[in-house]
Amino acid sequence: MIFFPMLETGQTYEQTFSYTQEEVEAFARISGDHNPIHLDAEYAAGTPFKRPIIHGFLGASVFSRILGTAFPGEGTIYLKQEMQFKRPMYVDTVYKAILTVEEVQPARHRARIATQVVQADTGKVVVDGFAEVMNAERI
Amino acid sequence: MIFFPMLETGQTYEQTFSYTQEEVEAFARISGDHNPIHLDAEYAAGTPFKRPIIHGFLGASVFSRILGTAFPGEGTIYLKQEMQFKRPMYVDTVYKAILTVEEVQPARHRARIATQVVQADTGKVVVDGFAEVMNAERI
Repeated sequence: MIFFPMLETGQTYEQTFSYTQEEVEAFARISGDHNPIHLDAEYAAGTPFKRPIIHGFLGASVFSRILGTAFPGEGTIYLKQEMQFKRPMYVDTVYKAILTVEEVQPARHRARIATQVVQADTGKVVVDGFAEVMNAERI
Repeated sequence: MIFFPMLETGQTYEQTFSYTQEEVEAFARISGDHNPIHLDAEYAAGTPFKRPIIHGFLGASVFSRILGTAFPGEGTIYLKQEMQFKRPMYVDTVYKAILTVEEVQPARHRARIATQVVQADTGKVVVDGFAEVMNAERI
């Protein structure tokens, strides 16, 4: 049996990750978001970003992965996500997701969790916000 | 030349859409979110949802598609998205995204846009929230 601790205020979880251009293209196909800012290097060169940026929804989906598979994990029901895209995200670049439990309501099995993506090398915040989740077993 | 009207307060944009289980599986691969609630019919049968539900991030990515490709379209930079997942979303089910311009700041090329997903048949709200975007050409 694996031991899963209950979520408590102040707990944090971190995970480094990166995306490839192939994953960006796959996300464009699934979502239908073919905005050239994500896909066309020549187009992106003419923007303030200079090169293609990752879809915000793909970059922030790391929160979905962590909440649904690790922290708190299986059984998590997503209630709310707020996210500010503060800086562009690029492919083949290492980022770190940092999740911090801000508030737990054990009776309702709910928690509010701060969700950030930062640049792994500089710590600069690229995505900032919070999630509200429910998990009958782990909250 | 195609005419793109500038975004104005009160304008709305609607688009119907649906997802397949294959797209849910593809999103699980790209995002790494393999929560069985999205992928395992037997597991899902034992939850209040009874059958697999779509990842919230996949369901809400319709906002990314519309904002980035249609309304306001090419050149859109995502600044913020807030989303409440109010009801589950299922595959092979028709939903409608409804976007309504709430506020425009022409000098800053920014707009706040209410973003909803509703059940196409009943009109019940499944995702509710708003986006903030920037577009130098269309706002």
